Order: sequence, then C-alpha cells, then structure tokens
Amino acid sequence: MITVTCVQLAPVAGDGAGNRARSTAAVAAAAGADVIVLPELTTSGYDFESVEQARASAITADDPVFDDWARAAGGAVVVGGFAERDENGVLRNSAMLVDGSGRRVRYRKTHLWDEEALYFTPGDESPPVVDTRAGRIGVIVCYDLEFPELTRSLALRGAELLTVPTNWPLVDRPEGEHPPERIIAMAAARVNRIAVACADRTHLEGGRRYTEGTAIVDANGWTVTEPLTGPGSVTARIDLGVARDKRISTRNHLFDDRRPEIYR
Amino acid sequence: MITVTCVQLAPVAGDGAGNRARSTAAVAAAAGADVIVLPELTTSGYDFESVEQARASAITADDPVFDDWARAAGGAVVVGGFAERDENGVLRNSAMLVDGSGRRVRYRKTHLWDEEALYFTPGDESPPVVDTRAGRIGVIVCYDLEFPELTRSLALRGAELLTVPTNWPLVDRPEGEHPPERIIAMAAARVNRIAVACADRTHLEGGRRYTEGTAIVDANGWTVTEPLTGPGSVTARIDLGVARDKRISTRNHLFDDRRPEIYR
Repeated sequence: MITVTCVQLAPVAGDGAGNRARSTAAVAAAAGADVIVLPELTTSGYDFESVEQARASAITADDPVFDDWARAAGGAVVVGGFAERDENGVLRNSAMLVDGSGRRVRYRKTHLWDEEALYFTPGDESPPVVDTRAGRIGVIVCYDLEFPELTRSLALRGAELLTVPTNWPLVDRPEGEHPPERIIAMAAARVNRIAVACADRTHLEGGRRYTEGTAIVDANGWTVTEPLTGPGSVTARIDLGVARDKRISTRNHLFDDRRPEIYR
Repeated sequence: MITVTCVQLAPVAGDGAGNRARSTAAVAAAAGADVIVLPELTTSGYDFESVEQARASAITADDPVFDDWARAAGGAVVVGGFAERDENGVLRNSAMLVDGSGRRVRYRKTHLWDEEALYFTPGDESPPVVDTRAGRIGVIVCYDLEFPELTRSLALRGAELLTVPTNWPLVDRPEGEHPPERIIAMAAARVNRIAVACADRTHLEGGRRYTEGTAIVDANGWTVTEPLTGPGSVTARIDLGVARDKRISTRNHLFDDRRPEIYR
C-alpha cells in the first residue's frame, strides 16, 4: 500500500515567486505521502494575458524549484506541471517527476487544449513510465487523459499509477454526476487496472472557472477521495498490487484478452 | 433526432420457443422507435447447464426469428444477441442487425467472458458499422465494450451509435455509483462523441445475478435513461448530429488531435 496525495491549488499567471512558494509549501504539507501530485502549470498559472507573459513565466528543466519540491517532499515522488522553456527557447506545457534521489524525469504534453496552442508547442515523445520506490508511475497532463490509446499504452508499458497534473475548465454536467474527465479517468483505471491520481487547480484565477476535480481513482476504477472545493489536498491509501495483476476472472486477463488485429 | 429503445428481458436457457416469443413481443412493444436493442444471447439464454444445452439452443444466421424481429419492428433497426451455430457447426456468441429492408448483418463476439469460452469460439472479424436509415450503427457484444481500442476503432470507422447487447454479471460497486460497465460506456461515448445503447438482461435465470444495467448514453457521454429493474425497456431521443461533429473546442477535434505515433 502507498499513500498518494493530490494537491489542489491556485497558481497565478505572472506570479512566479508566489507560485513557487505556494507549491513548495503544499508539497511540504503533504510530506509523508509516497506520491504527491500538483496541478498542470503549477509554476506559471494557466490564464496568460499574452505570449510575452507566458514566455516570462516559463522555466527550464533545471530550475531550482524542482529541488525545492524534492527537498520539501521528505522522500516522496513529486509530479507537477510547469511552463517549460526548452533548449531551443520553445515553450512547452510540461510536467516534472522528482524524487529524493535527485532524479528528474520530464514530460512534454502531447495533446494541447484549445488556447494552449497559442503559447505552447506539443511534445513528440511518449509519456514516461518511471520505476520509483512507490511503484511504476506514468505521467501525462490533462487533455492527454482523454485519449484511451495513450492511457492503454502506458498501462501496457507497466504503469501502475497514472499521475495527471491538470487544469480542467468547468463544463456542464448533469446533477449528481462526476465531472466527465473523472469518468474518463475511472474508465481508464478500470479497463487497465491502474490507479489514476488527478490534481486539478481551483478557480481563483481570471474569469475562467475550473472543475476543482482533484481526485484519486483506485485500480478497480473507483473514486476513493471526497470532493474538494478551493485550495487543499486529498489523500488515499492505494494498493498497487491490484494493478500488477491483470487477471479479472478465471479465464480473463485484461491485456492477454486484447485482439489488436481486430481494432482497425 | 432518433428514438432508441433498449429492452431488458430474461431469456431462459433451454426455452428457445419462449425466448423467441418474448423477444419478438418485446420488439413489437417497442415498434415506433428507430433503433431497438435486445440483450446478448436473447434467443438462447446465458446460463447453460452443458455444452449440449448450448449446442441445442444455437441457431443459424438464417433462422426465422430474425424475420420475426424485423416484421415486429415496424421499420426499426433491431440489434440482438443469439447463440449461433456457424457454417462449420462451431458455436458463436453473435449479434444480428436487421431492418425493414430484409438486410441481415451478423457479428461474432471477439472477446469472450469467462465461462463463455466453454461454449463459444471467438470471432475473428472487426465489428460491423452499418449505414441505416437511423444513422451509422456499430454492433459489439458485452465484454467487447471494455476494450477502448475497439470502441475507438468503431468511432473512427464512422459509428455514430454503438449498440451493445449485453449480459452483465452483477459485481460490487460503491453506493451511488453507476455499474462499472456503464462508466466505461460513458467514457467511450465522451472520448469518441458517439451514443452508446446497452441492453442488459435481468436476473431471473439460474443462480447468477445480473446488473440490470440497461441504459442509453448520449454522444456527450451522459446516461439519459432511468435505472430499470426487472423486465422492461428504456427509451431516449438521441441527436446523432452531435456524433457527426468531432470538434470540441475552437482548436480541438477528437480525432484530428490523436497522435498515434505517441501511443506505443
């Protein structure tokens, strides 16, 4: 069993120092967990006023904020989103995984949502699956989750826990329903038998309302955390042993049952 | 807008005449709909006592029951499951689509669930997507739904409404949650913008309890019918125009946004 904490906070575009301080404080508050997930674009905020503001908020993958997170985490694996300025000066909507060993694994979001395309260039590499002390952790960002081929591919590559820094704009849903992105996360968990940890932001920025959909889904596909409004965090104990066994009946195995030759 | 009706009934293993009469009566009761969906193995029942009973309950694809359904349907497209004895005498867990034109399109379930493998041989062909008066209709059976690559492939091939004859054994779920198969259906609908119509059976047969999960999910991924206990049906008006437009934001298109080179 591992302890997973997803942090819901309110990054502010243009306030890099504040975003760094708030995110590091949130990691420190979650220390003791095995895995801590922060939202998409935690260091930069989401609602940029201009390309110039987005560019000014971008940091490189060797920025000291990732050391701050690792130090504050007390040995936990931390996954969080940041606006990256890459080696060619190109902006990326990225996520970083850090742990107590000094390791850094970066992922560049491959499916950009709407106005993100004004600021960022999509990544061209498959998302990482990282062997950590806490288990095998996959990293994707927000809209990536809505491509079931992608979540399947991460599961086939051994991901047991999918971490999803996200900024989900609020959309309509029927009374009593989960947010649609949550339903997609639950289905991805269920069909792949992997846990999914989504850290969303809150809506304190600009005119845009966010879903505040932070939640942890276990490897059977059930949401095991309570809804969270405003800044805070949710924590759950998760058994990744479930994710390592894909047998779902006497004769069925989630992966061996696949018929790729049929999926065309 | 089309009208879709999903029938929930209780086929009985070994009572072929009764199953034929009940299914045809249910189709007649639903006449006026554009699409009528019956459960998996409607003509045979599910809980066979022996291979011999399964074999005795199997019919060929030119069985007159399909004419009965087509006649009773008043012009609707009917999709329903049956135990098939194929041209080589091999048993298949199949579904048939019929309409008022005399057309028959058969599909053989490619992903068998547990003890079904004792009786049936899986099919080797991709599920059909059929152009009908009501729209482009895909046909899969039960556990097939749990392979997101398959549902994606049907959507990419133009399916606007996915019909799913099913027999869902009841499994545990948290209080207030949809059945897990429903969540998978809702996610498949949402990520592909297709409607999904699931016809489940009820639990009047043998010792096995069924989910009674009959439901219609619209192309935005929301369940638009009420829960149904026991025999009966659910009906919904569905706008398949939604399914024909995959643009989900100013800059996003569910299919064009795919990055297949990344899904490896």
